Amino acid sequence: MTPGGLSLSELTAAIAERTSGRLLARVDGDPQRRVSAVAALDAAGEGELSFLANPRYRREAAGTRAGAVVVATAEANALRAANAASLVVVDPPYAWFALAAQLLHPVLRRTPGVHPTASVDPSAMVDPSATIDAGAFVGSGARVGARTVIGAGAVLGAAAVLGADVLLHPRAVVLERCEVGHRSIVHSGAVIGADGFGFAPLDGGWIKIPQVGRVLIGEDVEIGANTSIDRGTMGDTVIESGAKIDNQVQVGHNCFIGANTVIAGCVGLAGSARVGRNCMIGGAAGIAGHLSIADGCVIGPATVVSGSITQPGHYTGFFPIMNNRDFERTAAIVRRLDNLRRRLRALEAAAGGNAE
Amino acid sequence: MTPGGLSLSELTAAIAERTSGRLLARVDGDPQRRVSAVAALDAAGEGELSFLANPRYRREAAGTRAGAVVVATAEANALRAANAASLVVVDPPYAWFALAAQLLHPVLRRTPGVHPTASVDPSAMVDPSATIDAGAFVGSGARVGARTVIGAGAVLGAAAVLGADVLLHPRAVVLERCEVGHRSIVHSGAVIGADGFGFAPLDGGWIKIPQVGRVLIGEDVEIGANTSIDRGTMGDTVIESGAKIDNQVQVGHNCFIGANTVIAGCVGLAGSARVGRNCMIGGAAGIAGHLSIADGCVIGPATVVSGSITQPGHYTGFFPIMNNRDFERTAAIVRRLDNLRRRLRALEAAAGGNAE
Amino acid sequence: MTPGGLSLSELTAAIAERTSGRLLARVDGDPQRRVSAVAALDAAGEGELSFLANPRYRREAAGTRAGAVVVATAEANALRAANAASLVVVDPPYAWFALAAQLLHPVLRRTPGVHPTASVDPSAMVDPSATIDAGAFVGSGARVGARTVIGAGAVLGAAAVLGADVLLHPRAVVLERCEVGHRSIVHSGAVIGADGFGFAPLDGGWIKIPQVGRVLIGEDVEIGANTSIDRGTMGDTVIESGAKIDNQVQVGHNCFIGANTVIAGCVGLAGSARVGRNCMIGGAAGIAGHLSIADGCVIGPATVVSGSITQPGHYTGFFPIMNNRDFERTAAIVRRLDNLRRRLRALEAAAGGNAE
Repeated sequence: MTPGGLSLSELTAAIAERTSGRLLARVDGDPQRRVSAVAALDAAGEGELSFLANPRYRREAAGTRAGAVVVATAEANALRAANAASLVVVDPPYAWFALAAQLLHPVLRRTPGVHPTASVDPSAMVDPSATIDAGAFVGSGARVGARTVIGAGAVLGAAAVLGADVLLHPRAVVLERCEVGHRSIVHSGAVIGADGFGFAPLDGGWIKIPQVGRVLIGEDVEIGANTSIDRGTMGDTVIESGAKIDNQVQVGHNCFIGANTVIAGCVGLAGSARVGRNCMIGGAAGIAGHLSIADGCVIGPATVVSGSITQPGHYTGFFPIMNNRDFERTAAIVRRLDNLRRRLRALEAAAGGNAE
Repeated sequence: MTPGGLSLSELTAAIAERTSGRLLARVDGDPQRRVSAVAALDAAGEGELSFLANPRYRREAAGTRAGAVVVATAEANALRAANAASLVVVDPPYAWFALAAQLLHPVLRRTPGVHPTASVDPSAMVDPSATIDAGAFVGSGARVGARTVIGAGAVLGAAAVLGADVLLHPRAVVLERCEVGHRSIVHSGAVIGADGFGFAPLDGGWIKIPQVGRVLIGEDVEIGANTSIDRGTMGDTVIESGAKIDNQVQVGHNCFIGANTVIAGCVGLAGSARVGRNCMIGGAAGIAGHLSIADGCVIGPATVVSGSITQPGHYTGFFPIMNNRDFERTAAIVRRLDNLRRRLRALEAAAGGNAE
Repeated sequence: MTPGGLSLSELTAAIAERTSGRLLARVDGDPQRRVSAVAALDAAGEGELSFLANPRYRREAAGTRAGAVVVATAEANALRAANAASLVVVDPPYAWFALAAQLLHPVLRRTPGVHPTASVDPSAMVDPSATIDAGAFVGSGARVGARTVIGAGAVLGAAAVLGADVLLHPRAVVLERCEVGHRSIVHSGAVIGADGFGFAPLDGGWIKIPQVGRVLIGEDVEIGANTSIDRGTMGDTVIESGAKIDNQVQVGHNCFIGANTVIAGCVGLAGSARVGRNCMIGGAAGIAGHLSIADGCVIGPATVVSGSITQPGHYTGFFPIMNNRDFERTAAIVRRLDNLRRRLRALEAAAGGNAE
């Protein structure tokens, strides 16, 4: 937290500047009110900033003890009447709140330098402003950019490249020759650049196909905890700038993930899948290999994408949950749906018509 | 293993004491028979203890060479007739067996102290009876309780807290300010306290929302290998005492998991999901965000919980497996179920009735 | 890459020898043409080797600038007419290409020895030709075979055994008493030998069942990044030789995976599941516990195997993806399929027949 906090006036000025005027907030209340932290509507106290982005939470907003609430123009009047907090009125409020939270909870600036227990190959080029934590490993010929932090026990393979302001959390792994762009974040346990899963069959056994490509990660990307992104077999696996990937995600070799696409936890992408830009992939969805998903698609949770999707849209498919007894009965019917259809056809034929 | 083993009489006394008389076993056979290890019915030898908890395995129990078999009262007479092993008769037998296994296979008591290759911040408070293994990292202001073990290469972040008798297996990660209660176990590769997945949209891009909450884990909790539990955005992610979470599980920010709930492998919980107490969540189930599951629910494997569940019960939903040709045909019918229903309605209308 | 590359004649001779004559290729073109790397058809240049295994890519093969293309006999004539590249004609071409790629991209031979920051217990037996990287840990009584490499930060537990030419990638974990056979590869973040998930219920709580078995991994096995394989409760978890397991896979305690079986990413196997030999398990499939899958089965992606499969075959089951509106409607129909069936029966009864 920022000691002493910031006044609403300071926050609005800073965010207006940082967004080149895109987010201009109006303070409805006391611009000198100071806040030092963000908090949820129902937990916030006097010195804290909260927000109302979803009308569902109007009641919580009316009752909040937060010192200030960020709110959309459309909600401001109603909230003004109901609540004594100062309001910060801006559209969209959630983005403004996110930036305010960044200012109130800045990432701790780390002391530059290499911890004595870290292993840095003499041929690696580490910017003097970078931080290499205890037990971290930096391989031969690797490059580490300005202000980049390699956390405790993290591994950067030979000839791998991290841009500036990159954050490898403790125990993240970026293997040989892979690259991570400026301001990207790799969470603990993530593995970037393991071998893709490629084997040629011969006489019942399998011959390993060397995986000689790389993983190329753009700028402002976030890679979640315990996520795996395999290197390409021959070409590269590519994650474009602004993509956000959650925890426990598997990205196979030679996949492409477009800019600003968001992938929720537990998703699996088989090899050579291509996800367009500005997509949202729901948790635990599975994407088959060698297919394309158009820009701007939304895929529901636990949905199997088994073929290419060429039109933007919202696609879903998972078996609905039900009482277990009903499920047992329903599953038995699903197994014999063909029989049901046949019987329906027979009735239709008998009735002399067919609505199919 | 305990050198020389323990006699059945010693085991029954020790377990009766440890459970304050809750588990009083009767030895049917030789109380002085010594056992030094546990083994499955079909693999056990003379000096080994086995158990019969499921009547399905009666035949294996009858033929076992185990020195002793733990068995429920209801099964004892039949087994007595069929087998020469000493019996330990107790209800429930499986719990008694588990405690006997703990006594026969005690966790190796580790020599206290900090390995010379570990990095412990001088401001951390490490109980002198704790063990910090090779290459482990303990951050500033962290606290480590009595007899707690931090395995090789494990990471404890700044101001994080481990209670007494906690076991962090090699390469487990507990990040800044997170807390793990007494006797809890965190397996290798687990990541406790990575950032939740939170971004505010702005003009096609995403602004990171700082994740300033914690993960609070109660007592006697077990967290599986390569499982990820994200810290709360503003409040905390909470795992209550006695909960057991298997491998490869993803728990999103601000989730709540109630006491004694069991979560099998590969489950994903999206942010702010609330799972009640004494629930059992089947493997690879997926739980959507911002919903509640009542206490005492059983969720089947691979089931998507897409809305709140307010009544205890057993709920399931996954597509049944079938021959691939049948599947292709059935999937095509499912895609057009609406058409099937319409045709049924047409027939019903023609027949002058409607059973709907 | 091999400096200077290899001529097609050298490659064919080396592969024929390595396969004891099983893969005899014929060069159709210039046997002295040198290639130094492999590349995809559309990216390859003069000094590179590519391949055509799938007739779908005939057009790319015709237009490739690759110096040489590996191709099946049946495709050779057509490709010969369309393209100036030298051809390597062999059946099956993909296996030959894989071996050529191994020769052109050999795994870097590591300098033997123990890095000064590694921790190797004095009682461990490490072959002098093995390599122990920075920050790695080798426990008491562990054994490390000839030419085996333990990567940066990897952990080998007490009394664990690695055969010859094993490769533990950075941060892989092989815990106490587990064994990995010759030439097997364990990728970063994989955890071999964490405790199985076993608890006995007692009065609403859970008693941990000590997991005293091991994980036994055969030869030429590959274990993917962030995959978890639990040790057996009493017996062992067994992965037979030649099996290939992708990333983010969960293998429960006491599972058995037969020789040469391939398991794609994100698959979960519950405890005591038994998968036969030469099976292929699709990505994100889920296999329930205590069941068997016959040798030679193919399981589709995202398919739940809820009972034993006794016949080889191709089995699948996942809900088809559809437009979200159609999905909502279809899911509602699925929930009431029983009602649909009842109404069909009523119509059949009224019509005086029943095709069921």
